[in-house]
Amino acid sequence: MLAYRWMPSFQRHVFVCINERPADDPKGCCKAKGGVEVRDQLKSELKARGISKLVRANNAGCLDQCAQGVTVVVYPEQVWYGHVTVDDVKEIVDKHLVGGEPVERLMIPNQPHLTSHTFPKLRVEKPK
Amino acid sequence: MLAYRWMPSFQRHVFVCINERPADDPKGCCKAKGGVEVRDQLKSELKARGISKLVRANNAGCLDQCAQGVTVVVYPEQVWYGHVTVDDVKEIVDKHLVGGEPVERLMIPNQPHLTSHTFPKLRVEKPK
Repeated sequence: MLAYRWMPSFQRHVFVCINERPADDPKGCCKAKGGVEVRDQLKSELKARGISKLVRANNAGCLDQCAQGVTVVVYPEQVWYGHVTVDDVKEIVDKHLVGGEPVERLMIPNQPHLTSHTFPKLRVEKPK
Repeated sequence: MLAYRWMPSFQRHVFVCINERPADDPKGCCKAKGGVEVRDQLKSELKARGISKLVRANNAGCLDQCAQGVTVVVYPEQVWYGHVTVDDVKEIVDKHLVGGEPVERLMIPNQPHLTSHTFPKLRVEKPK
């Protein structure tokens, strides 16, 4: 597994907004909506499948989609998810991060950069 | 400019690690090495060029490259930069984020996912 360790090379990189705003901010914020719990669940699911060196889950600051929080963005395809809850994480991992198919019901509308909704499946073979 | 506002669609998305570790952690951390200052400078440069809605600069938690800090990763191409300082930011913006050519001297070695080092230039026309 050492080869993974020193390569900054992820097949997918998932950023979960955990930004906090004051309680009276009309935008709301992802932290208050459960961003930390979503991130923790995502890290846990990736670890459980043994793919946490292939798919990285990261904290992110404000992703500028506060009204859609908890907001999650998956690179390199730049698929945006909104209103994500802990209960959605397993489906995102299985269907999208492993299977390459975005979870349509959670996607934020209007993502004109996406010319396709089919992406590569995760390659899980170990390096030689 | 409103069209940008509601589309979660960036041409490039730059994540700057600002993770903090205890002062005695042998890994060191990006915050102690100037992560916050690099992020601030990046946001400032993008704003000065009027492209902050096309290229998003974000805080990130630990990117798992602590020894290379300050660590920066640019998506969608997933180009990793290490040991980034405030003085490097202008070059990254001009050459890579606008011009599509990575700044080779700052790249972390061993990025096998990069099959090319030439990427699209930023498109700056306004939406019709």
